[in-house]
Amino acid sequence: MKLVRYGKKGAEKPGVQLENGTRIDVSAFGEDFNENFFGGDGIERLGKWLLENEGSCPKIDEDARLAPPMTRPSKIVCVGLNYAKHAEEGGMAVPKEPVLFFKSTSAIVGPNDDVVIPKNSEKTDWEVELAIVIGKKASYVSEENAFDHIAGYVLHNDYSERAFQIEKEGQWCKGKGCDTFAPIGPFIATKDEIKDPNNLNLWLKLNGEKIQDSSTSDFIFNVQHVVSYISQYMTLLPGDIISTGTPSGVGLGFNPPKYLKPGDVVELGIEGLGSSKQIAKAYSE
Amino acid sequence: MKLVRYGKKGAEKPGVQLENGTRIDVSAFGEDFNENFFGGDGIERLGKWLLENEGSCPKIDEDARLAPPMTRPSKIVCVGLNYAKHAEEGGMAVPKEPVLFFKSTSAIVGPNDDVVIPKNSEKTDWEVELAIVIGKKASYVSEENAFDHIAGYVLHNDYSERAFQIEKEGQWCKGKGCDTFAPIGPFIATKDEIKDPNNLNLWLKLNGEKIQDSSTSDFIFNVQHVVSYISQYMTLLPGDIISTGTPSGVGLGFNPPKYLKPGDVVELGIEGLGSSKQIAKAYSE
Repeated sequence: MKLVRYGKKGAEKPGVQLENGTRIDVSAFGEDFNENFFGGDGIERLGKWLLENEGSCPKIDEDARLAPPMTRPSKIVCVGLNYAKHAEEGGMAVPKEPVLFFKSTSAIVGPNDDVVIPKNSEKTDWEVELAIVIGKKASYVSEENAFDHIAGYVLHNDYSERAFQIEKEGQWCKGKGCDTFAPIGPFIATKDEIKDPNNLNLWLKLNGEKIQDSSTSDFIFNVQHVVSYISQYMTLLPGDIISTGTPSGVGLGFNPPKYLKPGDVVELGIEGLGSSKQIAKAYSE
Repeated sequence: MKLVRYGKKGAEKPGVQLENGTRIDVSAFGEDFNENFFGGDGIERLGKWLLENEGSCPKIDEDARLAPPMTRPSKIVCVGLNYAKHAEEGGMAVPKEPVLFFKSTSAIVGPNDDVVIPKNSEKTDWEVELAIVIGKKASYVSEENAFDHIAGYVLHNDYSERAFQIEKEGQWCKGKGCDTFAPIGPFIATKDEIKDPNNLNLWLKLNGEKIQDSSTSDFIFNVQHVVSYISQYMTLLPGDIISTGTPSGVGLGFNPPKYLKPGDVVELGIEGLGSSKQIAKAYSE
């Protein structure tokens, strides 16, 4: 099943994308895609409900804005430097264990919303990433059991302001949590749809030119390792997002580096998880 | 006004602590202390409502568990190394601008709940901190206007596992977001109650011995600076928490370092914000 949400900010509704690409509104199911939904077997219950009710669900207009396909999660945990070539391009050592950081959930936007270049930013950069959506509370979970705690997968662009992230005092969060820096979607593919999350092609184009092009088979730490590892340090709640890191090809890695200017078009996608598109916009009051 | 919440986990209710220390249940007001409450002038509305309804609010049992005095915020943003002597005891340079990091909101517990020493932890440490509660959305706010965006203040113990934080790869979040690592409360004092948040005594005792004893007048970056600074990098939402850093006297700073053992008693307080007490407990399945 492919979960979507749509509509204007603040009035977003849940939907499902069918096999033929049509999207239907499932508001009548009575739940949004939130912690209670994921943690309360919502995917299974919605699947059963659809068997009887799909025909009476209204179609979603093709022009409707796609929203993030889940409500605000408790956290976005990101894995840094999880592809060897990307660590290299950033001049960083390949980590011996996962590097973790948080991204502010106030950064989440819909998959095709504009990305806003923050005030005083000169180094806004892109990062196509496979994100995991947690389906069941995870604390001290083994790698063997990690998949039991996953609801599905979703496309994420982990936008990063490199000067804020690296050149300011301290931790990375200043360059990771800016508003609009987490376009998520178009849809959550439930885990049954993705045969092997550790073997998916992913790509990103800047103004039509493909500059990230890799596979999650190049992960240093795979999906089950990452879920298990994070759960040793904190409890993952249903609906929480783990973003698994980006392959090489980010702006920071070019010589000279390339960063976003207003009007730039960023498109990205992952095998089985669709694609998204953001247009860069200057900040305005 | 002093906002409290009480009751068992998952069934927590809002209340108010009166001048004489009595706590009353304000469930009848019909709102919990969440983003909508803080962002929708809830403090002012509750104040007015109490003028007519205080007498009919049930008293809260003195033995009731105190809960965190707000529902789960979108984020906890922490300032690191915000007292010069604490930076020194950790062997870190005094920062030229605020060092920021996020704490996982799944770490939040009530002010007197046990602190659980995580599995495989040997270096669980304490940090008494003044926390700010955001009252109005804040994006690119000036220092001059920062107080307009503050709802109130609350006591926070920013527990930290030093090996997870410093000796592991990468960022601090592994040692900051463990479950129970953010006891918050006993109450939120609305900002009218605190004359000068940049001049409050704060202290922490380990097993009865006072080992942190300082004043927020020793801040490197004061409350208005911190709110303004963070809002340059991300939007702060109503109910969000900013924890302003800890003074010297943490376990890491002792020679040899001191860390929590099961049974240790941690008590802490801030002038005008009450006190809290946590007992350290070993992790068990």
